[in-house]
Amino acid sequence: MNQHIAPVELSKSYRLLNHGPTVLVSAQHNDEVNVMAAAWACALEFSPAKVTVVLDKTTKTRELVEKSGYFALQVPCYEQLNMVHQLGNISQFDDPEKLQTCKTEVFYQENYSVPLVSGSIGWLICKLIPEAHNQQTHDLFIGSVIAAWADTRVFRDGHWHFSEEHKNLKSLHYIAGGTFYLIGEEVKAE
Amino acid sequence: MNQHIAPVELSKSYRLLNHGPTVLVSAQHNDEVNVMAAAWACALEFSPAKVTVVLDKTTKTRELVEKSGYFALQVPCYEQLNMVHQLGNISQFDDPEKLQTCKTEVFYQENYSVPLVSGSIGWLICKLIPEAHNQQTHDLFIGSVIAAWADTRVFRDGHWHFSEEHKNLKSLHYIAGGTFYLIGEEVKAE
Repeated sequence: MNQHIAPVELSKSYRLLNHGPTVLVSAQHNDEVNVMAAAWACALEFSPAKVTVVLDKTTKTRELVEKSGYFALQVPCYEQLNMVHQLGNISQFDDPEKLQTCKTEVFYQENYSVPLVSGSIGWLICKLIPEAHNQQTHDLFIGSVIAAWADTRVFRDGHWHFSEEHKNLKSLHYIAGGTFYLIGEEVKAE
Repeated sequence: MNQHIAPVELSKSYRLLNHGPTVLVSAQHNDEVNVMAAAWACALEFSPAKVTVVLDKTTKTRELVEKSGYFALQVPCYEQLNMVHQLGNISQFDDPEKLQTCKTEVFYQENYSVPLVSGSIGWLICKLIPEAHNQQTHDLFIGSVIAAWADTRVFRDGHWHFSEEHKNLKSLHYIAGGTFYLIGEEVKAE
């Protein structure tokens, strides 16, 4: 268990996603656990906190979300670069041992049966708001954020504090073909 | 007119948004033009290219999108930092001269009557796909991308090429309270 994990107020949980990081989507149904990478996740509402995420029909994670009604979004970091890319390129339908292949470890927070990916820097557990049209037509899933945590080395007092000191904990921003950008320098508007 | 603007293939237009930049949303109905900043915009589909954007009911831009059926998303850059923050904090309902106040200049591409913000680094013109439930319940608007351009100094051959050389052209990633992050260093997964 990561000693740096601390809860994030739900009304501030949107800030974990606001700067547009690539995320990992995790879900579990009975004994089946999966994790995938997704670039298309976004905050939808401040309070009550909601999010959107696009889950293709070919993904195993989508099946687990639909069956369980829950999913987690987590913000991965530079240290997890190769794992994130693998999680976005291997399907559990092709490799049933996907999580071992990708060296992905999950943990659970008390009272929640949604798997969370170890080593990430932010986590949001979400309850699916079922919407057949959005899911079928657009592959778009909406979730209500019911719990959130972050790594206090880079997120505290409701704000990210990315720095060169913790470069390995910088968020990843995917482009295509294995190319990502790290989040960069903080700047403030006047 | 910016000599560095070049068209982007629609099938690659998602890459303008894939790394999660804060965007500017622009729209026009008859003589009314407005621009707002939004952190909650996302790609939705590769081909045909589609996007989502959250537009609050209190915004003038939303009214123009609903009336005209078109909007543009553009990717602003560091050089526009203060303008972006102002465009996100001033409503045209309160300040009818908002665009002058924010020193925002718009231009038009041939055959399109959707205003585009000068000085941005990427532009996507979108045709609204009207969906009453998403718009009313979630403030969520879906658009089909019908044309896209980028500044070739930082986006060419279908990829971003952010660098310190063109630091002023780096994308902005909003957190809260006037604090943004610039996009950072490129990294490649193995």
